[in-house]
Amino acid sequence: MQCSKCGNSQVIIKKQQSGQYLCKDCFIESIEKKVIKTVKKEKLLDKGDKVLVALSGGKDSVTTLEILNSFRKMNIIDICAVTVDEGIDNYRQEGVDIAIRHAKRLGIEHKVVSLKEEYGITLDEIMQKDNHIGSCSYCGVFRRTIINKAAREMGATKIATGHNLDDEVQAIMMNYLEGNTDNLTKLGAKSSSKAKEFTVKIKPLREIPEREIGLYVVAKELEVHFDSCPYAQQSFRGEVSDLINKLSEKHPTIKYSALRGYDKIKEAIGDGFKKTYPQSRCERCGEPSANRLCKACTFLEELGK
Amino acid sequence: MQCSKCGNSQVIIKKQQSGQYLCKDCFIESIEKKVIKTVKKEKLLDKGDKVLVALSGGKDSVTTLEILNSFRKMNIIDICAVTVDEGIDNYRQEGVDIAIRHAKRLGIEHKVVSLKEEYGITLDEIMQKDNHIGSCSYCGVFRRTIINKAAREMGATKIATGHNLDDEVQAIMMNYLEGNTDNLTKLGAKSSSKAKEFTVKIKPLREIPEREIGLYVVAKELEVHFDSCPYAQQSFRGEVSDLINKLSEKHPTIKYSALRGYDKIKEAIGDGFKKTYPQSRCERCGEPSANRLCKACTFLEELGK
Repeated sequence: MQCSKCGNSQVIIKKQQSGQYLCKDCFIESIEKKVIKTVKKEKLLDKGDKVLVALSGGKDSVTTLEILNSFRKMNIIDICAVTVDEGIDNYRQEGVDIAIRHAKRLGIEHKVVSLKEEYGITLDEIMQKDNHIGSCSYCGVFRRTIINKAAREMGATKIATGHNLDDEVQAIMMNYLEGNTDNLTKLGAKSSSKAKEFTVKIKPLREIPEREIGLYVVAKELEVHFDSCPYAQQSFRGEVSDLINKLSEKHPTIKYSALRGYDKIKEAIGDGFKKTYPQSRCERCGEPSANRLCKACTFLEELGK
Repeated sequence: MQCSKCGNSQVIIKKQQSGQYLCKDCFIESIEKKVIKTVKKEKLLDKGDKVLVALSGGKDSVTTLEILNSFRKMNIIDICAVTVDEGIDNYRQEGVDIAIRHAKRLGIEHKVVSLKEEYGITLDEIMQKDNHIGSCSYCGVFRRTIINKAAREMGATKIATGHNLDDEVQAIMMNYLEGNTDNLTKLGAKSSSKAKEFTVKIKPLREIPEREIGLYVVAKELEVHFDSCPYAQQSFRGEVSDLINKLSEKHPTIKYSALRGYDKIKEAIGDGFKKTYPQSRCERCGEPSANRLCKACTFLEELGK
């Protein structure tokens, strides 16, 4: 068994989709080339962009930072990063430390924002309350708000997140199954720039399978936080993920075909669903919001904060 | 435990979606009402229609015939039926006989067309050839051609098939996963009437789960052919069906939400995908075809017929 590209006998992966065997160097190159291809095809970056990487310290965000940094080294873009400390004991600190070390290594502007400083409450404290809803609901909303705010404060023109192929296909299938057509129009490699209140979000790793990102950070010897969040439960996403992975065993290209199909559907729908963008601002924090209070402030009021 | 509608203590089903318990009579009524609701909502029938039911003798087509017959009894439509005899030993004859008895019982015009008479070859004979592809490919194409032809010969204005909720959601999810966006625009309760060469197809049972149709024929004591086709294999459809059924256990409304979502997507896409309709006719048989030979005649040439 030897590398399908260079003949090296130290093969580290058989690519599920193409069936290619690759050695370490050719594998690293294949991932980086594919991300760059996505960036170009989807026009994710414009010269002069300042890209804020949402950097948790996990494999996906560290890979996003690492590969986008090649555009920074070519002086095409500038990069900054933000790490959200949700306040989860025995879990979050390691990711925060790793994020700090990566930012320092690359010499990029980096900011750590904690829920405690920002809202006076940690996720651990929220989860101790009697009337709490799922942890992911709070975490998702607060993190999104903090990242959007950081983008404005740091003058970022784009926000890059680490969503990979598995994440994206799971979201697509979940929304198909639940019939959430409004959410379906919000997925994709790049968020709409029509909602001027929000910085455009990009997903450079959208075509890279999760397992290949895991192998990439090992091959590149990048320090990452591998633990799973202690609040992660068996969710609908987990069920859908299991089913897609089961189908992928017999149909190795199915994640890609589902993604391509979705992209064609999204394009064909165009403005077929009326999209509403927040027209006003949250009375409490001033963030853009469709309602009197934004989702984050609604949660904070419910939590008595 | 008693019927949620009439209080009868002889409950025969707990409806998966609504959680209702129903007795035999209320269950039968619920199915018939729901089909009639689909017919009205989707405008499947016009007064004066002559509907050709594709009648295999299985539970789905017998139920379709039975419920559409209520529109015939009210003199809204006329009904005729066609049964295709594919030529499968120890399997097909029972369905054919059952179809004949139903047509006779209801006093409707009925035609049995065999692959042998029509094309000089049975499905059994095809499957004995060395160079055959999957049985379902031949069967699907030949059956469709025979049914379309019968509709024209019998002066039918609509063709009704027995596709149920499970069939439809399977097809939707298969096409999502495979990225077959062209096929996606062809699903739905009613085929497009833009292709004037083809009789409009309707699916009155599209919102009825498969298991409820099985129970309906038992409750109504309708004679049906329950055997599975001996050529049916573990196909991609089978895998997708298993996955959807697994999800349905924990999420009992998921088939409906997926269907509703698809219908909204289809409407939003509108003419977003360029649809091509056959512009010419098959050189061999004269049926409408996009190519020189229609799919049925292509198969026949390959089979040396």
